[in-house]
Amino acid sequence: MATHFSDLDHAHMHRALELAWQGRFSTSPNPRVGCVIAHGEQIVGQGFHVKAGEPHAEVHALRQAGSLAQGATAYVTLEPCAHYGRTPPCAESLRESGVARVVAAMRDPNPLVAGKGLAILTAAGVLVECGLLEHKARELNRGFLSRIERKRPFISLKMAASFDGKTALSDGCSKWITGELARSDVQQLRAQSCAILTGIGTILADNPQLNVRQFNTLRQPIRVILDSYFRLPEKSQVVQDDGETWLFTLTDTPSWVAKYENLRVFRQPEKIAQLNLHWVSEILAQNGVGEVLLEAGQTLATAFLQADLVDEIVYFQSPKILGNTARGIFKLPENPTVLTKSPDWRTISVTSIGDDIKWVLQK
Amino acid sequence: MATHFSDLDHAHMHRALELAWQGRFSTSPNPRVGCVIAHGEQIVGQGFHVKAGEPHAEVHALRQAGSLAQGATAYVTLEPCAHYGRTPPCAESLRESGVARVVAAMRDPNPLVAGKGLAILTAAGVLVECGLLEHKARELNRGFLSRIERKRPFISLKMAASFDGKTALSDGCSKWITGELARSDVQQLRAQSCAILTGIGTILADNPQLNVRQFNTLRQPIRVILDSYFRLPEKSQVVQDDGETWLFTLTDTPSWVAKYENLRVFRQPEKIAQLNLHWVSEILAQNGVGEVLLEAGQTLATAFLQADLVDEIVYFQSPKILGNTARGIFKLPENPTVLTKSPDWRTISVTSIGDDIKWVLQK
Repeated sequence: MATHFSDLDHAHMHRALELAWQGRFSTSPNPRVGCVIAHGEQIVGQGFHVKAGEPHAEVHALRQAGSLAQGATAYVTLEPCAHYGRTPPCAESLRESGVARVVAAMRDPNPLVAGKGLAILTAAGVLVECGLLEHKARELNRGFLSRIERKRPFISLKMAASFDGKTALSDGCSKWITGELARSDVQQLRAQSCAILTGIGTILADNPQLNVRQFNTLRQPIRVILDSYFRLPEKSQVVQDDGETWLFTLTDTPSWVAKYENLRVFRQPEKIAQLNLHWVSEILAQNGVGEVLLEAGQTLATAFLQADLVDEIVYFQSPKILGNTARGIFKLPENPTVLTKSPDWRTISVTSIGDDIKWVLQK
Repeated sequence: MATHFSDLDHAHMHRALELAWQGRFSTSPNPRVGCVIAHGEQIVGQGFHVKAGEPHAEVHALRQAGSLAQGATAYVTLEPCAHYGRTPPCAESLRESGVARVVAAMRDPNPLVAGKGLAILTAAGVLVECGLLEHKARELNRGFLSRIERKRPFISLKMAASFDGKTALSDGCSKWITGELARSDVQQLRAQSCAILTGIGTILADNPQLNVRQFNTLRQPIRVILDSYFRLPEKSQVVQDDGETWLFTLTDTPSWVAKYENLRVFRQPEKIAQLNLHWVSEILAQNGVGEVLLEAGQTLATAFLQADLVDEIVYFQSPKILGNTARGIFKLPENPTVLTKSPDWRTISVTSIGDDIKWVLQK
């Protein structure tokens, strides 16, 4: 496969990636995919995948292109599928359309595809090239890829703290540490995630809805609650509303659970005194959860960090100074070795957002 | 005085402000001043003040302009001086040059000038306008203005902390929390300051030079040390090197001090058990110190905050996680009221710098 792409190839693939990004709130558990079909500069078809069960990106683009697809180049952000799922394989559709060349940003690691889509096209005499803007395509589907390749979700830890690094007062109160714009941004992060994960402590303290309220979205993220001793009250909002809630526990399930179709309980088979976060992660991935937003307090955030399960930290920090008896962001033992080596985390971006800052770090 | 300025006026004043900024490492205790002399778009003279004892900005610009100053407009970032100091008054020089118009960014609050410079020009029939980009001119000379107007320096608190808001390990070690670029930036901040203020604890622990080493500068900032019980060792680098060191204390001065011309001791007249930071600030301002970089540990930083003497916080934060027994940035009582009101501090800028971030806040 060729690895040298023209400026025009780059421009069309950027466009396809932008299209794919339109599906960020809705494609889960499917990947986000965009497609552009063009003759030189002239785009003749474009599309993106909206939602599982709906047509793939390539189908929308091919429908728009019609007979103009003949001899064109198709740019796809992910290898076209090769399997009959809810829709016919896109590799077949592309072959039939008469496109002369297919440029894919990356191979689909899904074992049902894994090179078969590109092979179908190559066998049909279509010029196939792969790897254009692959790093961007991987970032676009970091949850989907993590689920397939690592058998666990991509976990993004969201924290909000004061200037002096406190997440709550000593009484646990954490309201209004950050401002309205930061809280709006969290709604975006939630909507982009397959699931929001939190501890039972948060549910008992605040009885939150843990959903997206600021704008309409085609699907709500699943609420995932870690509740070792099944303390979840039947009256909780996460039980009573329509949204899906998954609960991980060590103990028996109370009988009232059977009444709620939206509530799914996973009981840990391993007989240990606490939830194994690696097991939780595996179960989530097996059940189609790719991107997790971890909205946790000090204890759970620390546990995920110590289990080395945090891929990203999204840190909203306020200029407010809370004072010393308030709760710190983590509960970790002193670690002098960090002073003598490079940081484990690297800054992806840092911006001001209202009165606060938003600092994104990845491993 | 007119308050409507043209785009060209703005452009020339921006240029004058940029020129003034060239003096940021050296003009202290004098203000930073820039001057542009122009006929329309054509600049015929420009200059900035380099150092006390050297010519003022206007002198450099007028020398370059020569007879071309006739009928031109002079843009100055601060009202031209009216008093015979180390140089003749610039207001007189401008009058004699034949400029038709003088635009000043702001009046000089120094009682020796305070409108007299502009009055000399107005009386001579020169068109005088004041107030163009005044907010930028005030920012440029925030130290000088604070010293004159508030009788205390502009105090910038520099802190370096880990991701979890810790400034040091529990044993006090704070080396390498932030990276090389952040440390370079501190050299710039030091060079721009009239004085670097720290506590005796820092001197005893690290025996630092507290000076600018990364580049040549026409003057080193004064080292100011708060040392209630005069624990400063004679062998300290701040005593033994050439740089100026000022020490504030409550107690008697040891006899060895007389040997060191670079060491100046201020003994607090007020009989209280600790140094009064307001008194320290007043003394600094009276002695020409306008901009102070407070390089303090947890205790002194907290004391200045509690005395409401911090005008700016420059917070370098690393992605390193130090853990919980390490030292926090402040030692303040829990303050729940901050949650229910707007932040006291506002973000001026936040940027990434190497592996770290630099967050600048002002009141």
